[in-house]
Amino acid sequence: MKKELGPFFEPESVAIIGASATPHKPGNEVIKNILANGYEGKLHLVNPKGGEIFGLPVHASISSLPVGIDLAVIILPAKDTPGALRECAKKGIKHVVLSAGGFAEVDESGLRIQHEIVDIIQQTGVSVLGPNTSGHTSTPHRFTSTFFPLGRIRPGKVSYVAQTGNFATHSMKHILTAEHFGVSRVIGLGNKIDIDETDALEYLADDPQTSAIVMYLESIKRPGRFLEVAREVTAHKPVVVLKSGATEAGRHAAVAHTAAMGAEDRLVDGLLRQAGIVRIRNYSHLILAGKALSMAPLPRGARVSFLAPSGAMLVSLADLCVRLGLEVPELTPGALERIQEFSPPFIRMRNPVDIWASASVHGVEFAYREGMEAVLKDPDIDAVIAVLMLTEDTGIPPFDFIVDLAGKYPEKPVLITFSGDKHYEEECKAFIEPLGVPSFPEIEQPFEALSILSRCAQAMKRPR
Amino acid sequence: MKKELGPFFEPESVAIIGASATPHKPGNEVIKNILANGYEGKLHLVNPKGGEIFGLPVHASISSLPVGIDLAVIILPAKDTPGALRECAKKGIKHVVLSAGGFAEVDESGLRIQHEIVDIIQQTGVSVLGPNTSGHTSTPHRFTSTFFPLGRIRPGKVSYVAQTGNFATHSMKHILTAEHFGVSRVIGLGNKIDIDETDALEYLADDPQTSAIVMYLESIKRPGRFLEVAREVTAHKPVVVLKSGATEAGRHAAVAHTAAMGAEDRLVDGLLRQAGIVRIRNYSHLILAGKALSMAPLPRGARVSFLAPSGAMLVSLADLCVRLGLEVPELTPGALERIQEFSPPFIRMRNPVDIWASASVHGVEFAYREGMEAVLKDPDIDAVIAVLMLTEDTGIPPFDFIVDLAGKYPEKPVLITFSGDKHYEEECKAFIEPLGVPSFPEIEQPFEALSILSRCAQAMKRPR
Repeated sequence: MKKELGPFFEPESVAIIGASATPHKPGNEVIKNILANGYEGKLHLVNPKGGEIFGLPVHASISSLPVGIDLAVIILPAKDTPGALRECAKKGIKHVVLSAGGFAEVDESGLRIQHEIVDIIQQTGVSVLGPNTSGHTSTPHRFTSTFFPLGRIRPGKVSYVAQTGNFATHSMKHILTAEHFGVSRVIGLGNKIDIDETDALEYLADDPQTSAIVMYLESIKRPGRFLEVAREVTAHKPVVVLKSGATEAGRHAAVAHTAAMGAEDRLVDGLLRQAGIVRIRNYSHLILAGKALSMAPLPRGARVSFLAPSGAMLVSLADLCVRLGLEVPELTPGALERIQEFSPPFIRMRNPVDIWASASVHGVEFAYREGMEAVLKDPDIDAVIAVLMLTEDTGIPPFDFIVDLAGKYPEKPVLITFSGDKHYEEECKAFIEPLGVPSFPEIEQPFEALSILSRCAQAMKRPR
Repeated sequence: MKKELGPFFEPESVAIIGASATPHKPGNEVIKNILANGYEGKLHLVNPKGGEIFGLPVHASISSLPVGIDLAVIILPAKDTPGALRECAKKGIKHVVLSAGGFAEVDESGLRIQHEIVDIIQQTGVSVLGPNTSGHTSTPHRFTSTFFPLGRIRPGKVSYVAQTGNFATHSMKHILTAEHFGVSRVIGLGNKIDIDETDALEYLADDPQTSAIVMYLESIKRPGRFLEVAREVTAHKPVVVLKSGATEAGRHAAVAHTAAMGAEDRLVDGLLRQAGIVRIRNYSHLILAGKALSMAPLPRGARVSFLAPSGAMLVSLADLCVRLGLEVPELTPGALERIQEFSPPFIRMRNPVDIWASASVHGVEFAYREGMEAVLKDPDIDAVIAVLMLTEDTGIPPFDFIVDLAGKYPEKPVLITFSGDKHYEEECKAFIEPLGVPSFPEIEQPFEALSILSRCAQAMKRPR
């Protein structure tokens, strides 16, 4: 049965149980985050001490709260959590985030408390996110329940589901400080005693604010239902999953984490493939995938043309394409002719495109612009990657031509990486990314990103 | 027979044939580079126009040069190169760099000129680097023949051999602007009509200024001899090779590049393994390997302990270790006890080390310092990687404790990566790297680097 998760993401009123006046305490940071994101609903604070926090009145007890509150965020020690949850249920609050840790992931006594919470859920029918979660975020509704100091979270169209509180904390901080894309919903599942990855996926499936879903999972609680739901979703939205605990060493580390033992990895592999989910292996690809899905269209196929200023790069990146399942096809005669036209006659042009000579003769801007446009026009090419040469030697071009080209061919991913002077690479990134063109510091990354995009596109087209 | 390459790397006098007074021309840039690097030998310039360049007198012809010059750098159009080479030989110059392109990599007429040069080499016995090379570099001798504007090249202890001129140009610019390690010798082989990768390897084998060798190759000209030489070298110096053209697509791109067709890849794989060479696959790992070999010791084995502030990272990085051939062993009781001592009692500590809780309780500096030292002390651990959490939330520690620890355990690689705020990550890198501790922006990179180091160490120990 599909859970009604709407109030988690669009609450009209929220209660913070365990609100704190002490700076840096989770019960204080969560309020700061909510205010920083400009939450427009009603915010109720609860702390036995009463008083005011950030100018907001504090209720001394849950029982003194008004009725009709959509969502409660409980930030209390584990032992005080069941009582508070019961009181929330009594007050008619049907959706609760349990932020604190100290449950089954810790010890026997934590496990007993967790069992108690499961009983309360069954008795009262409340929906619970957590425990042991660092919260969730909903930028379209300007709301977050995370207690990690993030400040304003940049809105975007990709949603994240993570079976680890830390994704919503320092990894999110990394996205906010190192990247230019934003997020729509972020769901930290925690110990998932109630809401699990399948519920989250089912909600995001119909969420008009979510165009793609990226998940970090250590276990899949209800594989059968997960498969059913995922098969539906992946027909119209890309779903990318990092399922870790794939190896003995990984599983070993997982035990200490969210009290979940990873299932046999090959079974998982088959399940994800049947579900039309694109599996990734690297933690950093959670960010890479989110960036690619945020900033580039899905390509029609896996046929890439790329331009590089070095034969060595052309050769080793062509090898990489094969390893990543990307094709580097011959160009159509029209594209080939155009590229040959502005290249020194002694260089036999082909795909991938050796752009060094024409950049030396005609300048970086002209060579890359004409070269990129020629292959973007080619009907046999689905995506274009440019290894942009940025050194004072050949001159630093204005970067708007890249943004123009990406805008002119909106159906084809245009991904940028660099060779040359780090300083200008960063300048270029700072210019093109806020205008929607993704760039990547490591030369292999746009290929890895395109491989993810192309696998997503293939998964959407497969028969169901 | 071993070629005498010393004069390429320690020339007491050099002639630049095709010296130019025109800024930005290769014949001008090469002089600027030589001066910027503080070359202390005698520099002779040749140009029919005579006059002065950068205050140095210009000879109108090669014949008017003094005798006894060690090395000539010919930067002339292809068609003028054979004549100049012949004149250099007549003048008794035995070592020549042919910088220009326009030979076999271009067309039939270029191929004919290249054949002519081969004849001259056979008739005169000159040693030739190139043609179609962007030059070579020797930082211990403060000399370079590259015409790409690099300015001062940072000295280091790793040497590069590249069958592509571009490595010595914009990729080198990238190293100089993005990294803190330097290079010893850099050899751009070009079309290798005379000096090839085997000669280069043989020279670097006995070079006291070279502690490790990183090569980019598209073909191996004399596989038998290469194997013989490499087996010797790899017994005492690490050799890392990116051999590209491994796939059909890659070979396709290679044809247009240095006129070399890659050999059947599986044969190459076997050859490199027999030679004790560590094979890498990514272009960016040419830099990663150089950095690791420059800044970290070779580990005794493949047993790593790592610390991360997130269970998700611990699990997915443990998986990564398995894929990379690294072991994540149990800690010895002493190390375990020490880590448990300063961690909240409810967290069962193990390897990999979940440092989040103790960093929250004791602060980032204390937790990482104590945690890193505990595992560095463990005799069953060969290397330590720390995923350093840098956010204002938990505070930004002073970074000198990392440098101190790396200095205290010089036999164990200490590699750093980050989670959190990009700004502080860059601050940390800027602090620790000039003091000799390598850091990596992507979380998987220190593991990839350690895998290369550990494979190098294993290769040195294998029976020959």
